[in-house]
Amino acid sequence: MKNARKEPGLPPGSVVFTGDRRVEKIAIHYLQYSETKLEEKVLDNHMSSVFKPNTQGVVDWYDLRGIHDEAWIEALGTTFEIHPLVLEGVADVHQRPKFQEFQKGNSVTLKAIAFDKDSQEITTEHITVYFRPGFVATFQESSTDLFAAVRKRVKGASGRIRQRGSDYLCYALIDEIVDNYYVVLEEIEDVIENLEDRLLSSQDIRNKGEIHDLKKQLLVLRKSIAPLREAIGRFSKSESAFIADSTRVFVRDLYDHTIQVMDSVENYRDMLIGLQDLFLSEVSFKMNQVIQVLTIISAIFIPLTFLAGLYGMNFENIPELQYKNGYFILLGVMSLIAIVLVIFFKRKRWL
Amino acid sequence: MKNARKEPGLPPGSVVFTGDRRVEKIAIHYLQYSETKLEEKVLDNHMSSVFKPNTQGVVDWYDLRGIHDEAWIEALGTTFEIHPLVLEGVADVHQRPKFQEFQKGNSVTLKAIAFDKDSQEITTEHITVYFRPGFVATFQESSTDLFAAVRKRVKGASGRIRQRGSDYLCYALIDEIVDNYYVVLEEIEDVIENLEDRLLSSQDIRNKGEIHDLKKQLLVLRKSIAPLREAIGRFSKSESAFIADSTRVFVRDLYDHTIQVMDSVENYRDMLIGLQDLFLSEVSFKMNQVIQVLTIISAIFIPLTFLAGLYGMNFENIPELQYKNGYFILLGVMSLIAIVLVIFFKRKRWL
Amino acid sequence: MKNARKEPGLPPGSVVFTGDRRVEKIAIHYLQYSETKLEEKVLDNHMSSVFKPNTQGVVDWYDLRGIHDEAWIEALGTTFEIHPLVLEGVADVHQRPKFQEFQKGNSVTLKAIAFDKDSQEITTEHITVYFRPGFVATFQESSTDLFAAVRKRVKGASGRIRQRGSDYLCYALIDEIVDNYYVVLEEIEDVIENLEDRLLSSQDIRNKGEIHDLKKQLLVLRKSIAPLREAIGRFSKSESAFIADSTRVFVRDLYDHTIQVMDSVENYRDMLIGLQDLFLSEVSFKMNQVIQVLTIISAIFIPLTFLAGLYGMNFENIPELQYKNGYFILLGVMSLIAIVLVIFFKRKRWL
Amino acid sequence: MKNARKEPGLPPGSVVFTGDRRVEKIAIHYLQYSETKLEEKVLDNHMSSVFKPNTQGVVDWYDLRGIHDEAWIEALGTTFEIHPLVLEGVADVHQRPKFQEFQKGNSVTLKAIAFDKDSQEITTEHITVYFRPGFVATFQESSTDLFAAVRKRVKGASGRIRQRGSDYLCYALIDEIVDNYYVVLEEIEDVIENLEDRLLSSQDIRNKGEIHDLKKQLLVLRKSIAPLREAIGRFSKSESAFIADSTRVFVRDLYDHTIQVMDSVENYRDMLIGLQDLFLSEVSFKMNQVIQVLTIISAIFIPLTFLAGLYGMNFENIPELQYKNGYFILLGVMSLIAIVLVIFFKRKRWL
Amino acid sequence: MKNARKEPGLPPGSVVFTGDRRVEKIAIHYLQYSETKLEEKVLDNHMSSVFKPNTQGVVDWYDLRGIHDEAWIEALGTTFEIHPLVLEGVADVHQRPKFQEFQKGNSVTLKAIAFDKDSQEITTEHITVYFRPGFVATFQESSTDLFAAVRKRVKGASGRIRQRGSDYLCYALIDEIVDNYYVVLEEIEDVIENLEDRLLSSQDIRNKGEIHDLKKQLLVLRKSIAPLREAIGRFSKSESAFIADSTRVFVRDLYDHTIQVMDSVENYRDMLIGLQDLFLSEVSFKMNQVIQVLTIISAIFIPLTFLAGLYGMNFENIPELQYKNGYFILLGVMSLIAIVLVIFFKRKRWL
Repeated sequence: MKNARKEPGLPPGSVVFTGDRRVEKIAIHYLQYSETKLEEKVLDNHMSSVFKPNTQGVVDWYDLRGIHDEAWIEALGTTFEIHPLVLEGVADVHQRPKFQEFQKGNSVTLKAIAFDKDSQEITTEHITVYFRPGFVATFQESSTDLFAAVRKRVKGASGRIRQRGSDYLCYALIDEIVDNYYVVLEEIEDVIENLEDRLLSSQDIRNKGEIHDLKKQLLVLRKSIAPLREAIGRFSKSESAFIADSTRVFVRDLYDHTIQVMDSVENYRDMLIGLQDLFLSEVSFKMNQVIQVLTIISAIFIPLTFLAGLYGMNFENIPELQYKNGYFILLGVMSLIAIVLVIFFKRKRWL
Repeated sequence: MKNARKEPGLPPGSVVFTGDRRVEKIAIHYLQYSETKLEEKVLDNHMSSVFKPNTQGVVDWYDLRGIHDEAWIEALGTTFEIHPLVLEGVADVHQRPKFQEFQKGNSVTLKAIAFDKDSQEITTEHITVYFRPGFVATFQESSTDLFAAVRKRVKGASGRIRQRGSDYLCYALIDEIVDNYYVVLEEIEDVIENLEDRLLSSQDIRNKGEIHDLKKQLLVLRKSIAPLREAIGRFSKSESAFIADSTRVFVRDLYDHTIQVMDSVENYRDMLIGLQDLFLSEVSFKMNQVIQVLTIISAIFIPLTFLAGLYGMNFENIPELQYKNGYFILLGVMSLIAIVLVIFFKRKRWL
Repeated sequence: MKNARKEPGLPPGSVVFTGDRRVEKIAIHYLQYSETKLEEKVLDNHMSSVFKPNTQGVVDWYDLRGIHDEAWIEALGTTFEIHPLVLEGVADVHQRPKFQEFQKGNSVTLKAIAFDKDSQEITTEHITVYFRPGFVATFQESSTDLFAAVRKRVKGASGRIRQRGSDYLCYALIDEIVDNYYVVLEEIEDVIENLEDRLLSSQDIRNKGEIHDLKKQLLVLRKSIAPLREAIGRFSKSESAFIADSTRVFVRDLYDHTIQVMDSVENYRDMLIGLQDLFLSEVSFKMNQVIQVLTIISAIFIPLTFLAGLYGMNFENIPELQYKNGYFILLGVMSLIAIVLVIFFKRKRWL
Repeated sequence: MKNARKEPGLPPGSVVFTGDRRVEKIAIHYLQYSETKLEEKVLDNHMSSVFKPNTQGVVDWYDLRGIHDEAWIEALGTTFEIHPLVLEGVADVHQRPKFQEFQKGNSVTLKAIAFDKDSQEITTEHITVYFRPGFVATFQESSTDLFAAVRKRVKGASGRIRQRGSDYLCYALIDEIVDNYYVVLEEIEDVIENLEDRLLSSQDIRNKGEIHDLKKQLLVLRKSIAPLREAIGRFSKSESAFIADSTRVFVRDLYDHTIQVMDSVENYRDMLIGLQDLFLSEVSFKMNQVIQVLTIISAIFIPLTFLAGLYGMNFENIPELQYKNGYFILLGVMSLIAIVLVIFFKRKRWL
Repeated sequence: MKNARKEPGLPPGSVVFTGDRRVEKIAIHYLQYSETKLEEKVLDNHMSSVFKPNTQGVVDWYDLRGIHDEAWIEALGTTFEIHPLVLEGVADVHQRPKFQEFQKGNSVTLKAIAFDKDSQEITTEHITVYFRPGFVATFQESSTDLFAAVRKRVKGASGRIRQRGSDYLCYALIDEIVDNYYVVLEEIEDVIENLEDRLLSSQDIRNKGEIHDLKKQLLVLRKSIAPLREAIGRFSKSESAFIADSTRVFVRDLYDHTIQVMDSVENYRDMLIGLQDLFLSEVSFKMNQVIQVLTIISAIFIPLTFLAGLYGMNFENIPELQYKNGYFILLGVMSLIAIVLVIFFKRKRWL
C-alpha cells in the first residue's frame, strides 16, 4: 500500500527496485523442456552466460527469484531483448496487474497473495511473467516456489503441458497464482463467519476494529484482483501471434475464474458492510434498552422521592403529619402511583 | 458460499468434485426421441457401454444424477468427446453460471434454487447442460428430478419439443430451472411482506437479525442469477452452428425472463434496505419518545424535590417554617412551578 | 408486485392469465380506417368470425378488453398468425415492458399507470400492442378506454393519423399511455411537496411511514418505466420493415419522453431520500434539544438538592445549623452555584 | 420542476405552452448579416409578413421573445418549414435539453439559468435554438436579452462571427448560455463556502434546512445540465451537412465546457454531502459532550445525596448521629467519594 | 476550486488569464536539440523576435513561465500558428485536463500538484503542453522548474530522448508531472495513516474536522486526475500523424500510471470513509458506555435515596422509626437492593 517510489523524472524503462529486499542471493530456476526432453538447473546471477535464446521446439523457463539487483535485470533484458518497460515493471512492485503486448513478446504483471491468519493481514508478492515463443521468464523477489505444482506437472512427462508452447506455460503459471486466491478467500471467509457468529451470539467490543481491519484487507485484495481481471480479459482477447487458439480457450476459462474471485471479494465486502450495520444497530439497540430501564426506574422513584421529601419538611404546621395513619396512607398513595406508572409504561410497550 | 476448493495448481480440466455428496448411487435417466420415436431407460454407472453417439435424426438426453464419481465423469467425457473444461465445470460446484462454446458442443452452467421456508435459507444445486446436435447431457448431484415437466412434455407426443433438436431441448431444460426461480421469488416476497407487516404494526425485536439474514439470502440469489443473465445473453447472441434460428427466438425470451428475475432480486434488496431504514428510524424514534417522558418527569420533580429538601433542613432559624400557612403556601408555589413547566413543554411541542 | 405465476415447466407460448379478472365479458372495439374510409364496431368474443386479414390500404385496429379467456386468445393468435410468445406475453401480466420483433409482426409490452390519491397507491394495467402492416391489436384486461384520445383523432377525419399506417397508430397508442405518465408524476410530486411542507413546518409523526410508502410506490413506477425506456429505445432503432422512416422520427421523440419520465422518477427518489435525511436529522436534533434542557435543569438542581439534604441530616453536632443567618447564607451560596452553572452553560453555548 | 402538462393524447407536434406567461407582447429581434452587410429590426407578431427565407450568403437570426402565442408559433413554423416536433418543443418548457436533427434543419433545446441570491433559488428559462443554412431562430419567453454579447460581436464588424454561417452563430449563442452557467456556479460556491465557514466556527441551527435547500437547487441544476452535456456531445459528433468542420472544433470545446460545468455540480454535491455529514457529526458530538457533563454531575452527587438522606432519617437509634465529629467525618467521606469518582472519570478519559 | 471566470459571452479563443499572478517577469527557457546538437537560452518577453519555426531535424522546446500577459501569448500564438482554443486554454487555469488535436498540432492540458504538509493543502499549477513536429511549448505561471529532470536528461547526451522527436519530449514532460503525483500521494497516505493511528489509540476531538479537510483535498486531487486519465487515454489512442508508434508504447505505459494514481485516490477516499465510520462508531460507542455508567449509578441509588427520604419524613406515627435496630435493618435492606440490582445488570451484560 505504501508508495515507496523511484525518483520522479527518471527516464522510462529505468529499472528501480521499489520493494523490500527479501533474499540475500538471487537464484534462477531454469527448466528446458519439449515433448520429449527435460533439463533442469538452478543458477545464480554469475552464470548468466548460460542465457541464450534456444533453438526451435523447446521451451525455456527462467524462474528468477530476487529482483533487487537492478543492473543484473537490465543485463538480462538486453540478452533476451525484453522491452525496457517490461524490465521497469519487473522491479517496480507498485505497478498494478496488467497485460502488455510488445513486438517481441508479451508480459503479464500480477500479484501472488497470502493471508497470515495470526495478524489477519494479506501480503502480496509482485510477479511478472514474460513470454514469447520458446521462452518464458518469471520474476519475483521472495525465494518461495510459487509455481511448485506447474513445475511438477512439467516434470511428470504425461501431462498436456509438455506438448504445448510457452503461451500455455504462461497460462498455467498464472492459473496457479489465481488458484491460490481461492485459498486466501476461503481463509478470509472463515474469519468473516467467525466474526458474524461472535457478533450474533453476544456483543463483543473488539468487533468494531476487526471489521475496519478486514475492510482494509479487502481493499488490498481488490486492488490486486480488479486490474488482474481486466488484464486477463485483454489477454484472452489479444490477437498476438504468440498465443495459440487452443490456449485461448484456457485463458478464457481463467478469465471466468478471475471474475469469480472478484465476485467473492465484492460479496465479502457486502457481508462486512452488513455486519457493520448489524453491529451499529446492536449498539444502538442495546443503548435503547439501557435508557429505557433508566427511564422507568427514574420515572417511578422521582415522584415518590418528592413526596417523601415533602413530608420530611420541618414546617410547624403540616396537618397530615399528625394524622394517626398518615404514614400508612402515604405508603398506599405511593404504591398507587408506582402501579399506575408501571401500567402506563406497559401500555406504551416500553416495559 | 463456502469455497471448498480443489488443490491449487492442478492442471486445467481436472475433474474434482467440490460439493457435498448427496446420493449413494449414480443414476442416469436416458431418453431418446425423434418426432416419431421414444425410448426411455434408467441406467447406472456400470452400464456405460450403452453410451454411444447416435444416428442422425434422434435426440439423446442423458440426465445424470450424481457427479461425485470423478473417474466416471472423465470416462464419459472421453466417450462423447466433451471438452475437459466442461468436465471440470460439471464437478466443480463453485463455478458460477456461464455459457461456453467449444468446437464440438456448447455448455451452460447454472444453479437450481430452492427456498426452505422453515430455516428461511436458499439451497442451490449445481447444474451443467451440455449439448450438440443429437445429444444433450445434464449433470447434477441430487436425485431430485428437476426436469419433470420437460420430460412429461417430451413423452406426450403432441408438443413442439419432439419436432425440434437438442438446442431446443437445452433451452427447455434451462427454462424450467428459471421458471422455478419465480416460485422461490414469490416465497421470499411473502417473507418480506410478512416482515414489513410485523414491523409496521409493532416493534419486534427479532426483526434486526431477520433483515440481516434475508439480505444474506438475497446475496446468495444474486450470486446465482446475475451471471446467469449474462450467460443467457451470450447464449442468445451466440453464432454457434448448433443453435437453430427458431430456437434463438425462445432463448431471447428466456433472456427477458432472467432480466425480470434479476430485477425482482434488486427490488427485494431495495425493499429490505427500506425496511432496515424504517426499523432503525423506529428504534430511534421510540427512544426519543422515552427520553422525552423522562425529561418531563425529571424536569418537573427535580426543582420540587429541591424545595422540599430546602425546608427539610434543620437550621434553627428558618423563618418560613414558623409561618402558619407556610406549608400550604409552599404547596401552592410547587403547583405553580409544575404548571409553568408543563405549559413551557407544551409550547415547545415536547409534550 | 406479486409474482402469481403459471406453473413452472409449461411449454413456451402457453397462454396463462396471471392477473386479476376485472371484466365479466370480453369486448372488442374494432376500428377500420384508411385516409377516406372509417368503420367502427363493438364485438364480443362470439363474433370472431369477423376477424380476417384485410385488404391492402386500410388499417384494422382491434382493441381487446379482457385477456382472461386463454383459449380465445390462442384462437385469435392462430387466426392472425401471431407468434405464440406474443400471446403468452399478452396474458402474463407479470412480464416487464419490452419490444419484440418477429417475422410477421412486432409487439410492444407496456404498463398503463394510475395513481389513487386516497390510498396513495399506484395501479398498473398490463398492455400489449401488436402491429404489422394494416393490422394493430391492443390487449388489456380492464374495460376502461385507455386510448380515447387516439380514437377521437382517428375518427376526426382531418388528422395526420388517417394518412399513416399501422406503425404510426402503434406509436400514437403508446404515446397516449406515456402522456398519462406525466399526470401520475404530477400527482406524486404534489404528494411529495405536501409532505415536505408539513415536515418543514412542524414535526409530524406520520411522515416516517409515508416516506417509506412513497418510496415503495416509486419502486413500482421505476419497475414499469425503466424497461419501457429501453424498449422504446430499441423500437426507435429497429430496422424492421414494418416501421416507416417518417414514424421513426416520432418514436425517437417518444423515446425522449420516456427518458424525461425516468429522470423525474429518479428525481423524486432523490427528493424522498433528502426528505428522509431531513426527517431523521429533525428527530435527532429535537432529541438533542430535549436532552440539553434535562441536563441543565438536572445539573443545576442536583448539587443544590445535595446541599439541602446535607443540612437536613440529624447529626447532633452540625455547627452551621446554629448560625443565626445560616439559612440565609446557604440560600446565597445556592444562588451563587446556580448562577455560576448558568454562566458556564451559556459559555459552552449549551443554553 | 412542476409538471404542468398539456392534455394527454394530443397529436404529436401540438404546440401547447406549458410555462408561465412572462411578457405581454411578443417581440422579435431580427438581425440579418453577412461578412459585409448588417441589418437590424425589432418586429412584433403582426409583422410576420416580413418572414421569408433569404437569399444565399446572408444569415437571418430571428430572436423571438414570447412563446405563449401558440397559433402564431405554428404559423411561423409553416412559413419556415420547421418540423412540428421542434415547434412542440419550443412551447413545452418541460422538455429536457436535447439536440435534434431533421431533414430541413437542426434544433438545440437548453435552459438558461439564473441564481437569485436572496431567495437562494435557481430560475430557468426554456430556450430553443433552430438553425439551417442562412437561418437561425431562437425562442424564449422572457424579454431579457440573453444573447447580448453575441449580438454585440455580430454588430462589431471585426469578429470571426460575421465570416461564418448559421451553424457558428448557433454555437456562439449556446456558448453564451453555457458561459453564464459559470457565473451561477460561482455564486453557488460562495453560498456553500459561507455555509461551511459558519458551520465550522459555531453550530448554527439554520444550517440543516439550508443544506437541504441547496441540495434541491443542485438537483434543479443537474436536471438542466446533465442532458445538455449529452446533447452537445451529439451535436459535436453529428454528421449533419448543416455543420461545417471548422465549427465542429468549437462545438467540441463547448462540449468540454459542459463536462466541466457538470463536474462542478457533482463536486458541489459531494461538498454538500460532506457538510451534511459534518453537521450531523457536530450535532451528535455536541450531544455527547452534554450527556457526559450530566453523567459526571449526576454520578458524583447522587451517591452523596443518598448519604445525606441516610443521616436525615428519623430513626431513634442511629449511633453515628451522636458521634461528636460525625458530621465532619461524613463530610470527609463525601469528599473522598467525590475525589475517587473524579479520578475514575479522568482515567476513563470522560472528563 | 474558485471559478474566477472571464466575462461570459467573449468570443471563443479569447485569451484571458484567470489565475493568480505569481511572477513579476515572464521568462522563457529555450532549448534546441537534435541527436548531435544542443543549444540553451533564457529569454524574456522582449526577445520574441527569436521565435521562428526551425529547420527540420531539431526539436525546439519553449518553456514559458508566466502566462498572465495575455497580449503576448496571443502574439506568440500567431507566430507559431497555434489554434486560438489552445491559447485560450493556456491562460484559463480553470480548464480541466484534456487532450486536443488540431490540424497543426496537439495540446495536452494538465495540472502539476504539490502538497503543503503544514497547511495540509494541495496546490495545483495549470500546465499546457503543445507540440507538433520539431516544436514543443510548455506554459505555466510559476517560475518553478517543473521539468528539471527531463531537462537534465536532454542535456546529458546519452539518453534516448535526444534521438527522438517532439512527441517523445511531450510524453517525457507529462511523465515527469505524473511521477510527481506519486510523491504527493505518498505524503497524503502518511497523513491518513497518522490519522488512523491517532484515532485507534485514543479518541481525538480534532479528527472530525481533519477527515473533512482531507476529503476535500482528495476532491481537489480527483478533479485534476480523473480527466487526465481520460486525456492520456485519448492521447494513447490518437491517430494523429504527429505521434510516432514507438512513442505510443510509452504513452500507453503513462496511461497505466494515471490509472494507478486514480486507483490510489479512490483507495484513499475509501480509507477516509472507513475512518469516518470508525470515528462515528467510536463516538457513539463511547457515549453508550458513559450512559451505561449513569444508568447503573442512578438506578442503584435512586431507590435507596427514596427509602432514606421515606424514613426522613416527620410523621408522628412511623412505627419502624421506634424499632431499636430499625436503622440497621434498613441498611441491610438497602444493601440487598443494591446487590440484586448489580446482579441484574451483570446478567443483562450491561456491566
